[in-house]
Amino acid sequence: MSSSKTSNIDSLGEFGLIERLTSDFNIKNRTSLLGVGDDCAIIELNDKESLLMTTDLLVEGVHFNLMYVPLKHLGYKAVAINVSDICAMNGRAEQITVSIAVSSKFPVEALEELYAGINLACDTFHVDLVGGDMSAAYAGLTISITAIGRVDNNIITRRSGANSKDIIMVTGSLGASYMGLQILERENEVFKANSNVQPELDGYDTLIQRQLKPEARHDMVELFGQLGVVPTSMIDVSDGLASDIFHLCAKSGLGCQLFEEKIPMDDKTKLTAIEFNISPITCALNGGEDYELLFTIKQEDFDKVAGNPNLTPIGYMTSKEDGRNLVDANNELIPLKAQGW
Amino acid sequence: MSSSKTSNIDSLGEFGLIERLTSDFNIKNRTSLLGVGDDCAIIELNDKESLLMTTDLLVEGVHFNLMYVPLKHLGYKAVAINVSDICAMNGRAEQITVSIAVSSKFPVEALEELYAGINLACDTFHVDLVGGDMSAAYAGLTISITAIGRVDNNIITRRSGANSKDIIMVTGSLGASYMGLQILERENEVFKANSNVQPELDGYDTLIQRQLKPEARHDMVELFGQLGVVPTSMIDVSDGLASDIFHLCAKSGLGCQLFEEKIPMDDKTKLTAIEFNISPITCALNGGEDYELLFTIKQEDFDKVAGNPNLTPIGYMTSKEDGRNLVDANNELIPLKAQGW
Repeated sequence: MSSSKTSNIDSLGEFGLIERLTSDFNIKNRTSLLGVGDDCAIIELNDKESLLMTTDLLVEGVHFNLMYVPLKHLGYKAVAINVSDICAMNGRAEQITVSIAVSSKFPVEALEELYAGINLACDTFHVDLVGGDMSAAYAGLTISITAIGRVDNNIITRRSGANSKDIIMVTGSLGASYMGLQILERENEVFKANSNVQPELDGYDTLIQRQLKPEARHDMVELFGQLGVVPTSMIDVSDGLASDIFHLCAKSGLGCQLFEEKIPMDDKTKLTAIEFNISPITCALNGGEDYELLFTIKQEDFDKVAGNPNLTPIGYMTSKEDGRNLVDANNELIPLKAQGW
Repeated sequence: MSSSKTSNIDSLGEFGLIERLTSDFNIKNRTSLLGVGDDCAIIELNDKESLLMTTDLLVEGVHFNLMYVPLKHLGYKAVAINVSDICAMNGRAEQITVSIAVSSKFPVEALEELYAGINLACDTFHVDLVGGDMSAAYAGLTISITAIGRVDNNIITRRSGANSKDIIMVTGSLGASYMGLQILERENEVFKANSNVQPELDGYDTLIQRQLKPEARHDMVELFGQLGVVPTSMIDVSDGLASDIFHLCAKSGLGCQLFEEKIPMDDKTKLTAIEFNISPITCALNGGEDYELLFTIKQEDFDKVAGNPNLTPIGYMTSKEDGRNLVDANNELIPLKAQGW
């Protein structure tokens, strides 16, 4: 199938491939307010609210390794990453459907663990499981979740709404999930070499937790409401800060300037990165799976968020011509590269 | 993993497994009007309309065989079966998301074929592709589609609404899709044995078409509106008439009596069944994948549908105590068995 006349999927990348496959599609229903290209689709509901819709696929061996990912955590995470996409449009998730393709090597008890995690996430994020499908598979486990939610029309936040000079902010801290993954992979390699050796996970709990059981920041969406702030653009940090700020820049037709020293990372993440000979800033820029919210606000709104320990200003939007740059610790301007993992 | 302490997935069946896995879940949002257990979930929209939501998974080697299923047809069918679920609640589909997990052995051109079929179905059924996800997979192709649509509140049709003495009806004809599958599998076996032999598909076009490119009966939903008929209960025929009438009986707390001689099957289907030494009625009862609508109406509505060539009365609902029966060609009462393939 890989003759010179055909193209390899990997050569296009996920975003390029989706663009190529969906470029011929047109929108026919007036209720389809926004289609492919943001964290969620927007569907018309009424004068007050819109519906948000998003979907994510998790494939064993690609997105997770059952050697070290407990099924309960996996179920939780599968829901959280969908809820996170709804948060990224400033909305609240309400319903999900869950479809599973699973090989018969999994006993019912394994699926019960998975669904216990899904149920826990449904409680945590106040969403209802309203449907799904279940199929045999020749190998492995594939989880497909679709979430819908609602957002008030006057606070819908798209990727495309940023303006030049808007302040770029991020919730929580970045890089921990990626370092958690490094720990888990290291100990898994040790275990594969000698199954009598106990994994050394002590002291890395917070990092591992961020990787295995990430939280959707629905609390931050609530906080925006309390502070009276409507972000001008927003995305959740799934591929890494660099890749995700690129999406905000591209959709808003702008450039950006980030400050390395402002980017929030906790000490444990930095120390562990150094232990692994990884530059800490690389974890934040390219690690991904933080599921924090990356957003922009108008300068005049800064007073409303200044000093809040959950919200950190990390730069500002510039004109497209200024490019996308990072001011590093030596005060030098470095062009950003998007490089998800 | 298959020690005496664990349970095998296959031992429960799809419906039993879903019930076991989701029995602990509770509904938390007042907008979740109906959850798991019908063709679609029902979500509150406004006084006039509700939202319908459904999802289906297609797995290579389980639901389709790429030896004889063209990717364009597969894409079309994947959309049609979701639209069919929305039709089964008397609604109209408006948006879909499409997620694909695919091994890198598929060239981009293969995915373009798949998406051409999805696009054709979007045009035919007037739905918009508004999102999705794409992932690598170690093997094969998995397609997960979620559809949402709308239905006027006064015509929502659940599986649970039938009453004793309601007339059972079905759209179109049954069994053709199953015989189409038998033809394709027979010719595939011949081809595998000797790849120089041309497949004998001539004359079987209509059957093969029903299998490869089924239509969702959105035209019948429109017809109900024109005739001023609101079915009391409805389901689409995906698992086979026997299995699907069981769902209507179970959800409505009733029994049924079907008449073999009334069940609509075209001559080609009957003749081909005989050629394969299959009893024609078995195709209709247990074949499945017809994607016709099986529904019940009040007796007083019968005048509105009588004589319409698209709508065939095949029996009536009875009390639960009377059981679920078929009156066969010899006028004998035979208990129905649900037996999807």
